[in-house]
Amino acid sequence: MCQLLGMNCNVPTDIVFSFTGFAHRGGHTDEHKDGWGIAFFEGAGVRLFVDHQSAVESPVAELIKSYPIKSKHVIAHIRKATQGQVALENCHPFVRELWGRYWVFAHNGDLKHFAPVLDGAFRPVGNTDSERAFCYLLQQLRRNFGDTPPAIAPLKAAIDELTREIAAHGVFNMMLSDGSALFAHCSTRLHYIVRQYPFTQAKLSDEDLSVDFSEVTTPNDRVALIVTEPLTTNETWMPFRAGELRLFVDGAPVDDG
Amino acid sequence: MCQLLGMNCNVPTDIVFSFTGFAHRGGHTDEHKDGWGIAFFEGAGVRLFVDHQSAVESPVAELIKSYPIKSKHVIAHIRKATQGQVALENCHPFVRELWGRYWVFAHNGDLKHFAPVLDGAFRPVGNTDSERAFCYLLQQLRRNFGDTPPAIAPLKAAIDELTREIAAHGVFNMMLSDGSALFAHCSTRLHYIVRQYPFTQAKLSDEDLSVDFSEVTTPNDRVALIVTEPLTTNETWMPFRAGELRLFVDGAPVDDG
Repeated sequence: MCQLLGMNCNVPTDIVFSFTGFAHRGGHTDEHKDGWGIAFFEGAGVRLFVDHQSAVESPVAELIKSYPIKSKHVIAHIRKATQGQVALENCHPFVRELWGRYWVFAHNGDLKHFAPVLDGAFRPVGNTDSERAFCYLLQQLRRNFGDTPPAIAPLKAAIDELTREIAAHGVFNMMLSDGSALFAHCSTRLHYIVRQYPFTQAKLSDEDLSVDFSEVTTPNDRVALIVTEPLTTNETWMPFRAGELRLFVDGAPVDDG
Repeated sequence: MCQLLGMNCNVPTDIVFSFTGFAHRGGHTDEHKDGWGIAFFEGAGVRLFVDHQSAVESPVAELIKSYPIKSKHVIAHIRKATQGQVALENCHPFVRELWGRYWVFAHNGDLKHFAPVLDGAFRPVGNTDSERAFCYLLQQLRRNFGDTPPAIAPLKAAIDELTREIAAHGVFNMMLSDGSALFAHCSTRLHYIVRQYPFTQAKLSDEDLSVDFSEVTTPNDRVALIVTEPLTTNETWMPFRAGELRLFVDGAPVDDG
């Protein structure tokens, strides 16, 4: 199975510290060596880096660790192939355009007997269950709402319904962002944390590295991190419930009702 | 105006030498400093690197110059903004999926009064005439051929007709690839060269750098390079005719009839 990392912030923030620990799992402290990828929103634009080399060996991963790209929405993935061969077109995150916005998607899990009818608006390029699920999600959103993007509450309700439908086929931990919000769905394992004032020191669990966030933030910054397994040893990560879809906006989870 | 660089090969080849000269035009030997981008097909997958920094200052461009990514189809672009602000979503190349393949597009030129009706299947994320033209092109290809991709000859004929229609609005030098072929249309300026056995030395016109291709190739390799302005001083570049669309497959232009 793969690992997911997401970040949602109220101001553009770099992910160098968290990505350093996360990338270590790609072939080093863990077995996820069949490629990796990371997507950063910058305004409406997206930078997508994908590589079918393991994250610990990839020169592109080295760049990400040393070059602080600032973003309000980041989704990263390291892959342990379950369906689809090791190839660039099967690396997550995947990107498509809907409603004049880019959508970024990554999946951890395994779907069985999942062959939805795709009408041609969004078709997989590779051969993973994950890209198939992403194409189906976007197709159904466009069918539900037509050419006009909905407000956030009906959008979340539609994504909630679709993720339940897809998750009936197996494990479907996933992250999805359109550059204005980040949706995270948990089938089995997902954790989050909100870092905000007063910031403290954090210590990576995968590498001997600490950062004192109070030195690199302002009191108004707020950052939500969502990840398969907690990245740090001295912070309290909140587990998702099985079947839960959470919406993150401006660095915090948006609670319903 | 912007500059374009395309490469089409019969075996995966790195573009380090040509990109080094080309990137030099991004803020150094030329004024194209409003961002840049490069897309590499690797099988069905695409690696896209875009940056709104000038190519001479970008750490990502440094990576491309030092990391030999091998590809059969590459499209690169350096931008001098004419329409649309300097922002990541306005950097070329643009990527969309049609028929379960990624399509990569970059444009040099300026289109006036170009506001085609877009039905929602492909919508621009940024606000350039270029991305609008790309969305229109793919929409019309899907309308013409439905859900089944055509053979290469009718595809070329359709792209030829569409580029003439778009070019009636101004300057439309462009490159387009679906990972199996590369199309290049010239409104005003475009040149190409085919490098094949016996390979010789080439000397960049923008930087004091030479490469002896006979040392880094096999006798079966064939590489077509297409570019706004010739990149080397000691090779004979073929100018495109105005209004000409050329199709490149396996490192060579495919002549009609």
